[in-house]
Amino acid sequence: MITYVNPTGLMSMLSQAEVDMLRSAASGKIYDLYRRCSLAVLNCGSVTDSAEDLLKQFHNFGINVIRRERGVKLEIFNAPESAFVDGEIIQAIQDHLFSVLRDIVFMHSFPALPPSAPGMDESTGITNLIFRSLRNAGVLSTGIEPNLVVCWGGHSIGESEYRYTEEVGRQLGLRHLDICTGCGPGAMEGPMKGATFGHLLQRDRNYRFIGLTEPSIIAAEPPNPFVTELCILPDMEKRLEAFARIGHAMVIFPGGPGTAEELFFLLGLKMDERNAGQPMPLVLTGPEECRGYFEAIDRFIRAAVGDRASQYYEIVVNDPKRVADICAEGMKRVTQQRISSGDSFSFNWTLHIDPEMQKPLEATHQVLDNIVLKRDGHDSELIVNLRKVFSGIVAGNVKNQGREEVAKYGPFKIHGERQIMAEMDNLLRSFVASGRMKLGGEEYTPCYELVETD
Amino acid sequence: MITYVNPTGLMSMLSQAEVDMLRSAASGKIYDLYRRCSLAVLNCGSVTDSAEDLLKQFHNFGINVIRRERGVKLEIFNAPESAFVDGEIIQAIQDHLFSVLRDIVFMHSFPALPPSAPGMDESTGITNLIFRSLRNAGVLSTGIEPNLVVCWGGHSIGESEYRYTEEVGRQLGLRHLDICTGCGPGAMEGPMKGATFGHLLQRDRNYRFIGLTEPSIIAAEPPNPFVTELCILPDMEKRLEAFARIGHAMVIFPGGPGTAEELFFLLGLKMDERNAGQPMPLVLTGPEECRGYFEAIDRFIRAAVGDRASQYYEIVVNDPKRVADICAEGMKRVTQQRISSGDSFSFNWTLHIDPEMQKPLEATHQVLDNIVLKRDGHDSELIVNLRKVFSGIVAGNVKNQGREEVAKYGPFKIHGERQIMAEMDNLLRSFVASGRMKLGGEEYTPCYELVETD
Amino acid sequence: MITYVNPTGLMSMLSQAEVDMLRSAASGKIYDLYRRCSLAVLNCGSVTDSAEDLLKQFHNFGINVIRRERGVKLEIFNAPESAFVDGEIIQAIQDHLFSVLRDIVFMHSFPALPPSAPGMDESTGITNLIFRSLRNAGVLSTGIEPNLVVCWGGHSIGESEYRYTEEVGRQLGLRHLDICTGCGPGAMEGPMKGATFGHLLQRDRNYRFIGLTEPSIIAAEPPNPFVTELCILPDMEKRLEAFARIGHAMVIFPGGPGTAEELFFLLGLKMDERNAGQPMPLVLTGPEECRGYFEAIDRFIRAAVGDRASQYYEIVVNDPKRVADICAEGMKRVTQQRISSGDSFSFNWTLHIDPEMQKPLEATHQVLDNIVLKRDGHDSELIVNLRKVFSGIVAGNVKNQGREEVAKYGPFKIHGERQIMAEMDNLLRSFVASGRMKLGGEEYTPCYELVETD
Amino acid sequence: MITYVNPTGLMSMLSQAEVDMLRSAASGKIYDLYRRCSLAVLNCGSVTDSAEDLLKQFHNFGINVIRRERGVKLEIFNAPESAFVDGEIIQAIQDHLFSVLRDIVFMHSFPALPPSAPGMDESTGITNLIFRSLRNAGVLSTGIEPNLVVCWGGHSIGESEYRYTEEVGRQLGLRHLDICTGCGPGAMEGPMKGATFGHLLQRDRNYRFIGLTEPSIIAAEPPNPFVTELCILPDMEKRLEAFARIGHAMVIFPGGPGTAEELFFLLGLKMDERNAGQPMPLVLTGPEECRGYFEAIDRFIRAAVGDRASQYYEIVVNDPKRVADICAEGMKRVTQQRISSGDSFSFNWTLHIDPEMQKPLEATHQVLDNIVLKRDGHDSELIVNLRKVFSGIVAGNVKNQGREEVAKYGPFKIHGERQIMAEMDNLLRSFVASGRMKLGGEEYTPCYELVETD
Repeated sequence: MITYVNPTGLMSMLSQAEVDMLRSAASGKIYDLYRRCSLAVLNCGSVTDSAEDLLKQFHNFGINVIRRERGVKLEIFNAPESAFVDGEIIQAIQDHLFSVLRDIVFMHSFPALPPSAPGMDESTGITNLIFRSLRNAGVLSTGIEPNLVVCWGGHSIGESEYRYTEEVGRQLGLRHLDICTGCGPGAMEGPMKGATFGHLLQRDRNYRFIGLTEPSIIAAEPPNPFVTELCILPDMEKRLEAFARIGHAMVIFPGGPGTAEELFFLLGLKMDERNAGQPMPLVLTGPEECRGYFEAIDRFIRAAVGDRASQYYEIVVNDPKRVADICAEGMKRVTQQRISSGDSFSFNWTLHIDPEMQKPLEATHQVLDNIVLKRDGHDSELIVNLRKVFSGIVAGNVKNQGREEVAKYGPFKIHGERQIMAEMDNLLRSFVASGRMKLGGEEYTPCYELVETD
Repeated sequence: MITYVNPTGLMSMLSQAEVDMLRSAASGKIYDLYRRCSLAVLNCGSVTDSAEDLLKQFHNFGINVIRRERGVKLEIFNAPESAFVDGEIIQAIQDHLFSVLRDIVFMHSFPALPPSAPGMDESTGITNLIFRSLRNAGVLSTGIEPNLVVCWGGHSIGESEYRYTEEVGRQLGLRHLDICTGCGPGAMEGPMKGATFGHLLQRDRNYRFIGLTEPSIIAAEPPNPFVTELCILPDMEKRLEAFARIGHAMVIFPGGPGTAEELFFLLGLKMDERNAGQPMPLVLTGPEECRGYFEAIDRFIRAAVGDRASQYYEIVVNDPKRVADICAEGMKRVTQQRISSGDSFSFNWTLHIDPEMQKPLEATHQVLDNIVLKRDGHDSELIVNLRKVFSGIVAGNVKNQGREEVAKYGPFKIHGERQIMAEMDNLLRSFVASGRMKLGGEEYTPCYELVETD
Repeated sequence: MITYVNPTGLMSMLSQAEVDMLRSAASGKIYDLYRRCSLAVLNCGSVTDSAEDLLKQFHNFGINVIRRERGVKLEIFNAPESAFVDGEIIQAIQDHLFSVLRDIVFMHSFPALPPSAPGMDESTGITNLIFRSLRNAGVLSTGIEPNLVVCWGGHSIGESEYRYTEEVGRQLGLRHLDICTGCGPGAMEGPMKGATFGHLLQRDRNYRFIGLTEPSIIAAEPPNPFVTELCILPDMEKRLEAFARIGHAMVIFPGGPGTAEELFFLLGLKMDERNAGQPMPLVLTGPEECRGYFEAIDRFIRAAVGDRASQYYEIVVNDPKRVADICAEGMKRVTQQRISSGDSFSFNWTLHIDPEMQKPLEATHQVLDNIVLKRDGHDSELIVNLRKVFSGIVAGNVKNQGREEVAKYGPFKIHGERQIMAEMDNLLRSFVASGRMKLGGEEYTPCYELVETD
Repeated sequence: MITYVNPTGLMSMLSQAEVDMLRSAASGKIYDLYRRCSLAVLNCGSVTDSAEDLLKQFHNFGINVIRRERGVKLEIFNAPESAFVDGEIIQAIQDHLFSVLRDIVFMHSFPALPPSAPGMDESTGITNLIFRSLRNAGVLSTGIEPNLVVCWGGHSIGESEYRYTEEVGRQLGLRHLDICTGCGPGAMEGPMKGATFGHLLQRDRNYRFIGLTEPSIIAAEPPNPFVTELCILPDMEKRLEAFARIGHAMVIFPGGPGTAEELFFLLGLKMDERNAGQPMPLVLTGPEECRGYFEAIDRFIRAAVGDRASQYYEIVVNDPKRVADICAEGMKRVTQQRISSGDSFSFNWTLHIDPEMQKPLEATHQVLDNIVLKRDGHDSELIVNLRKVFSGIVAGNVKNQGREEVAKYGPFKIHGERQIMAEMDNLLRSFVASGRMKLGGEEYTPCYELVETD
């Protein structure tokens, strides 16, 4: 079955030259990636954890970029039936299809700047690339006062946690706040669903639900139906930076090592002295049953990094209104700071992000063996390393590349001084105990070993 | 605690003379009604079945219309805290408060037409009054093609039925259809909630969720947060007529005698020969577990009214897509009929409603004793009488006036020929068996007795 | 040739009962008035000073209100060809046709309030009627800060004066100010034309050009094409009150006795002590060649009423920017006053207008004989009388009723004390000398005689 | 005096890297051009024929691009006072300033495509560049049916011709047609001014007045206040191509050799067989007094190119309605052709433009000596040559480079066969006689000599 889709947004007004490049790119070496992401987007109704299953199920799915005098059309073969109503693809999915074309193919074909742009080092180059991706996606806009809350949390959570994220979303929406998440299901969907009601109650009609994703997870976490602006960043680190630069307040729901990775990424930014003037409310929150979880996190941070670190986040248990109040109140300080520093409301240029944090981490034994968690250096180094370690555990648990490493060479070794290792042990055990390490019901075999260095 | 609210909509631009009349009306003999409806609207978050409990709980609640040079303000004492966010009343509730002021006070103070308007009999007078109420409420609009689906069903339903109504709503929204319900919770909320997602997925931003209510039920069924246009009609019969004149397709979810009353109201309209050219899709639908319920209804109608009646409705079990497809397909025929008859898209003037159906029914023994259910007269008479009988049972079950009658003089007597009485007995027993007669868990004591007349 | 027009605005959503009344009204005793005003509006392209010529030219013109299930249609016979483009009536003219239907027929058929509304005397009744007419015409709106400049002046002026009014309009538009005029050609069109460019340059797209007229002059001064909201008030005095209540600043261009009438109306309001707190900038302005004209006016006012009166207006010769600056600056004070008095931004309820000024003046010898212009009473009485005297001269010059009076009984007698009569003589002679008494080139025969009373 | 202006449109959301490049570009070798164009735009109120006079008058004018964290700001020194109202630069001028920044600086700094884009020859490269310029300027838009009329004619015309262009504009606006001109005064302003009224009368609020200009003429023809979208193309030939690709109908008012150049450009396109299927109405029109002018043009074309050529244009004398009707009727055929060829509504990709016509012409003796006007070759060659010859005369008359050539080496030689030369002589003499060769009142000394080649 063949379907044709007409472009929307940026893709609706292309020159012939741009169409030519787009077509040759979409049928070239990035075709596989393009096809996979398109399929994920078309499949947004159903949830799966496995991109492979999806590809197998729709093995005869295909997508072509067709040239029309007036622009491009997509020619789609054998799309999942769930994407259709009355023989037409649901409009949100059509939009997402063109977001994929834009971010995977168009951005790839058209480098923004001449290679030798003046004053561009690698780090500012990355930041500018992120800015450009977000701008093309319509995520950045002039004329909106700071009101964007980034919500992080697992894509596969229980009914009770889901409802909690929904209620937090409702309270945020009631305060006219917009939402940005990783755009998948679970804690990435709940806040948007809840905020929809909140905004409806306040008669807001122009709310934004921004979804940021990246190619390696889009299949497992296809954009949920609430996402109004979808942007696919090139990799995880750029996605994290995008969150940090567009979010005005941050809410973290319970999760496993992935959530810990995100938390240490933010903590690293907030504890960087160069970001001292940056008000960026950071709330860790969940329903009553998560109290122990957050206590464990808090204890670990205080033990590993020091009590000082605890001033950079606030833990709120079972109080969605309080979460929303903290965010709403924080917006005023953010607005004030942007005005006084002359920075953009929609993109935090002045936030300093260490080049080390921008680099994609490759989860190998060699990389992890070079990391030692210890408190006698700079705080910032320890925090950067903590993020890497949790990133490594995530990879060893669920990413193809990491899992292969572990299968071949055994568990990753996590090195560190005794006390940190002890606390780390407690924390990881609590993750295991509460089933936060991996999906599915099987018993968990750790992909890591803790090694004391002193 | 005192709160002030500024007017929106029609109430935002009043002359001094209008404000004067409004103030004297709102502080006069309709004050009780006005205060009660305002409180119900302010309490929309919580659900209660008892207006009395609500009034007791907020006994010190008060509301005044204040005169300002530039119009009116509402001065509110001790409003329920749930109506506030950050010290301000939620916008949707503010809008609803001014809908109450408009429909209860303003409409009451300003008769639309001179008493002796030419060519106005009582019946056309009622229809014109309904039109005016709906127009003031912003429910009628030029320029929208027929797309309004009326959804009926109980306000207190189980989780599974609620989810079914939600899914039907989602499928309607995906087809760009708008929703009109009795505006309370349960089956009046589910379709709107679901349609919100459907519309979001199709990027519709101007959808309408119309809520029609009346003073005696607004406390038990306060407008849910999804309602975008609220209109309070003077009584149940005018509300039923309003549904029939603005709805382009009708969906009935499972319910008790109240739902049966509505069904026979519609059946009466559809079987009236003068409405032969009126395409008005009527679907009875519910999840799988309701199959028996609908079979009982169907059997009763065929037995009582004749097989012929069954052509006027379609029963769809457990198939939300099919429900939505029937509605969507019906819209085309409705549009065609309106164009060819020159009738308004938004108000069905040519629909014939028997003056007998427009009259408010008083549920007394005397009234019911004068009704005999028999098949040897006109179909239409039998159907009108069936509606009245079910209306009487509803009153005997849950309305103050009806319950007092029953308490004083014993159960209402339902008279009819043998075969109809037998089928009636079956149907009512099935309602009792499935707990559809009344809320709460107590055993049900029938408020009626069936009496064979031959 | 027959044309059909579909309704817009308020007339697009009528009940059947309203349509019935409208039809019977439009074919009844007000039909002549209705037909005449409709023809004037259809003829807006061409300019004529004589309603009679127009009616003669289009003697076979006819207009009917047709009943449609969905509202009304206009059926028009033999409309002026200038009203059509490609066989369809120009949209602005269609809108104006329905404004005529609304103001002449609809307003007439539907009295707003029960006769015995509480607290309504004749004067407040008039004000409320005016409010209602303006509201129905969409002239009043919430949410716009004071920005409306009323411009008065002749409908038949020279090229140079026209260009001056245009430039004043441009400067007003450049300052985001909206315009309200008597809606005809000449000084009523120039400011709107000019303001169109001003608003375009400032990228304002929602500017308003409000035209207020009344039945006896609409033929001679049909609404110009710039008018975005047209309202036909019942008579001249209500039209003057409407100007005073919605205008936030007043600009008067050169004219004859009619302009003098308007000036004394405003002066009467401004010198009324009860209006002491009302900031309402009043500017008399024209090109260089009008300097003498304004000096004569100024001298007359100072001599007749006293120097004190001169503080209430400002004369600006040949400086459009200064005119616009005075208006723009005045808006701030008006806004402040409305906020502090709690009055509406769009309708000045607190402005006191003497009931004597609200009464329609009948220009007869008897009425004028009862007026004596003298300075030993109250200022306000003198000013009210001055307005009446100029109104009488206007009638004697150009209105049918007044001209017949003069033809039968000789010139009107204007009575007053010596010094005022002397100044009056000067002023009237200057009007005669500069050809401001009447249109056309013939020599002017005064319709008045000045009579000294002491 | 220093003023700061905040960006609008595309320039309002720039990355830091883009700002850096913009700043270094704007202060580099294109600074002179940038400053000159900015000054022209700021001076849009006044008319001058001499860029040099303007620069002299505002010798201390300066403009800088300032870096802000959130984008760019313009810092302007000593701008012409006419650009200000109440101390702020008029919004339209602000927009135009950022159009200059975009087209002169931004477009210059960011090449659209990698040099070696596949399938790009020089000709398609030019077309793609033009497309990109127009898209950035917001000139291209999806969702608007063909409705753009290109109007050409002189920037310095008499009152009567100006009024004629205004009336043609009014008739176009009444038919909902949009206007595109060279964006200066005279025949480039009249149609826009007239169309403003036409659109107002039809209540169109989203009309577009597109102005296309190029750096060498912007000072003499600064964008008039009606222009809603301004685009500065790199040179005259690209501007001509832009007109041809976005215009759906063409209207040519009387002019001199410049207008003849434009006419032969269009005639060249229309007579090209590859454009046989392109409906592009072409009307030559003016008031009665121009009848002789158009007869001379017509006679020349028929004599030089053949009667066949006359089918490609229509001459309409003194009939604005007919002009508008031809355009309106043509839109239907254009729409049909675009749909059937799958071409864009807003950019005519399928129009074939000979690479020879895309090349900038350098007006030198050598270039002109190589041109021989003769009829024994292809029509298309003759027409291309005719355009070049008239372009040469324009240069010899008014452009700096051309005038210097003539001053140094004597008149340009125009070579051609006898009969064409004879007709040419007639035509040029008629231009001279009616003062269309040059502005100013002095006697005209021809910059050309006609030379018969046989």
